Amino acid sequence: MPPGVITLLTDFGTADAFVGTMKGVILRINPDVRLVDLTHAVPPQQIMVGALALRSAVPFFPMGTIHVAIVDPGVGGPRQPILIETERGILVGPNNGVLSPAAEQMGRPFPRLLANAAFFRQPVSHTFHGRDIFAPAAAHLSRGSSPDAFGPPLESIVQLPLPQAAYTATSATGEVVYVDHFGNLITNISANALQRFSGRPLSVSMKGRLVAGPVPAYTAVPEDSPLAIVGSWGMLEIAVRNGSAAERFGVGTGTPVNVSVESRAHEQPGSGSDF
Amino acid sequence: MPPGVITLLTDFGTADAFVGTMKGVILRINPDVRLVDLTHAVPPQQIMVGALALRSAVPFFPMGTIHVAIVDPGVGGPRQPILIETERGILVGPNNGVLSPAAEQMGRPFPRLLANAAFFRQPVSHTFHGRDIFAPAAAHLSRGSSPDAFGPPLESIVQLPLPQAAYTATSATGEVVYVDHFGNLITNISANALQRFSGRPLSVSMKGRLVAGPVPAYTAVPEDSPLAIVGSWGMLEIAVRNGSAAERFGVGTGTPVNVSVESRAHEQPGSGSDF
Amino acid sequence: MPPGVITLLTDFGTADAFVGTMKGVILRINPDVRLVDLTHAVPPQQIMVGALALRSAVPFFPMGTIHVAIVDPGVGGPRQPILIETERGILVGPNNGVLSPAAEQMGRPFPRLLANAAFFRQPVSHTFHGRDIFAPAAAHLSRGSSPDAFGPPLESIVQLPLPQAAYTATSATGEVVYVDHFGNLITNISANALQRFSGRPLSVSMKGRLVAGPVPAYTAVPEDSPLAIVGSWGMLEIAVRNGSAAERFGVGTGTPVNVSVESRAHEQPGSGSDF
Repeated sequence: MPPGVITLLTDFGTADAFVGTMKGVILRINPDVRLVDLTHAVPPQQIMVGALALRSAVPFFPMGTIHVAIVDPGVGGPRQPILIETERGILVGPNNGVLSPAAEQMGRPFPRLLANAAFFRQPVSHTFHGRDIFAPAAAHLSRGSSPDAFGPPLESIVQLPLPQAAYTATSATGEVVYVDHFGNLITNISANALQRFSGRPLSVSMKGRLVAGPVPAYTAVPEDSPLAIVGSWGMLEIAVRNGSAAERFGVGTGTPVNVSVESRAHEQPGSGSDF
Repeated sequence: MPPGVITLLTDFGTADAFVGTMKGVILRINPDVRLVDLTHAVPPQQIMVGALALRSAVPFFPMGTIHVAIVDPGVGGPRQPILIETERGILVGPNNGVLSPAAEQMGRPFPRLLANAAFFRQPVSHTFHGRDIFAPAAAHLSRGSSPDAFGPPLESIVQLPLPQAAYTATSATGEVVYVDHFGNLITNISANALQRFSGRPLSVSMKGRLVAGPVPAYTAVPEDSPLAIVGSWGMLEIAVRNGSAAERFGVGTGTPVNVSVESRAHEQPGSGSDF
Repeated sequence: MPPGVITLLTDFGTADAFVGTMKGVILRINPDVRLVDLTHAVPPQQIMVGALALRSAVPFFPMGTIHVAIVDPGVGGPRQPILIETERGILVGPNNGVLSPAAEQMGRPFPRLLANAAFFRQPVSHTFHGRDIFAPAAAHLSRGSSPDAFGPPLESIVQLPLPQAAYTATSATGEVVYVDHFGNLITNISANALQRFSGRPLSVSMKGRLVAGPVPAYTAVPEDSPLAIVGSWGMLEIAVRNGSAAERFGVGTGTPVNVSVESRAHEQPGSGSDF
């Protein structure tokens, strides 16, 4: 049996030793587990950003991986600590929505309360449940403790209100939901959904301006030109080739994006940019 | 026997490959050791910041862990490279105070000079002892080399002049000693020391203004309100719920903080905020 | 046999889960491999910065280490994915020059096309070959797959046009090629080449101003003073003791640096600073 993998995603940053401290706690309980950082640069308290980054990563990890995600503005308050068993692995974190998109992605989520204090580091602080509750829970799970032992099942968990794209026979209307390091604007319009328009020329617009595409690769447009492309999340993205679309357009999450089947048959996909 | 853990804390940043290079050096000597980053974002040459981050993390690691800490403005000069055996593990780094608070924390420190060049990578550069002296020393220690073999005992080491809080029967006067990623202001007033006031209402002030608390959890105050709380270091912290106290108050390390027993018995703890 | 080491160097940043995702892909293929981050803070698309950071680190890793380096403005376009066998290990990444300086450093480079789609993660995206091509290739190599199986040999690869220093009997003329986290200005004038002037007093100048040195250690000059020193890369660097030379001089890569044998025998090395 491989030693198991625990991933960590937080808004703790890497300037302090908070993340390292969690790893120390984990290694005291399971010296053999593999630790992988997803990111610790989620902006403080931005649950949506953390939830989407987590969801993007979980499909690529080994079966049985334990994912700890902590973006936790309610730490120390009444929000519950939970684990969620899924088909692909186990999620651990606060019950505030940060886990819910990944849980759906991983299949057949079965949540439980983290109630058994025998799995906590004592004394439990009121400000750092990552160290005192979530890290030890993940470590014990990685050693084979049964999820049943941690607490009772929960009928439901807090669901993150992900903005949903709207689709018609000839259009898709969504919005930017995530801005990555390169300034790519990732939307909630999925490549799967775009297949309904298969074979027909599309035009993509944001803030009333057309962008080239969807193109098959960044290199389909000149350097520094904007484009729409299906990115690595399987979602439509607005990008600038070797540049930052976020900077170019001065936009962020929540910006509406529209895809529509072109009515003028003489116009080819990708030819409509006016930038 | 578990393979052993080496932690790394530096002011090297993560933009260059300096830390990765140290890991390469270590893995050539001990391919099985576990490597954990505490932080590499200590501001350049700020020994105090590194020392406090290190001290905060060491209690949470497995017994026998080897901690390498390098904030080293005197690299290449006469300052000595040292190791410090303790009850909980071994510290490795420059003799400039960066190790001393952690050494006290870890118990019964016994320092030695790193004098035996057989444990160095040759040639030793004058600018990167992390790679050439400290990383190889830690790697050899993790493989079981005896600390005796590295050099002679030292009668004393450089102690970091940590500012000390002052306590009376009715007050504690300290200062901000560390500002974390969230903008929380960590003071040198310890939870243990505050127990002398146990049961009596306290008021906390900074720069002449009262803040709520000490409160049991961030959620005891409204969003965006300031508060005092015992944080994960076991020290009193000034925070803003889901905000940055450093930004709100425009202060940093060295700012005085006062705790006093309230003389007016009708006033309850946490009720005194005027923000 | 040790479990093998894979290093990762990218311009992906650490704010998203891209790097973590690559690690998930690798651990699904080889759960035992050791993963080391070199850096993920290469500025977007700056191949030269990535290539030099990579070259600086590779000599310090165990024999057989697999280094993945992805700074890849042409992802999805016609640029080729490659591996390069060398005497010390294997390099994996795009054929755009990012690997070439490290390949020379590692000795006897033998490049191959990554052509065998059986080693790719399917479907291969057009925007994230790190996840879909390079990470799986590295993982399979770390498990012992023969480089032959990945694709045909290449007669040549794209070479990065590294600026070369010019040397005469009495001078060396180079330029700043890399600026590190501390603001040290690393030049392309090598310590080896400077040995031609051995024993004769040298003066170092940048932008017409003399700097002290080459000195043997930062501590040879007062705090906050500029100096020239042979740094950890084995190259001449312009630094400021416990400060940032990049800030002090307001310069970056491409700035000319000159070393010359002093004609006035009464002047000692290091005495000529006019700062």
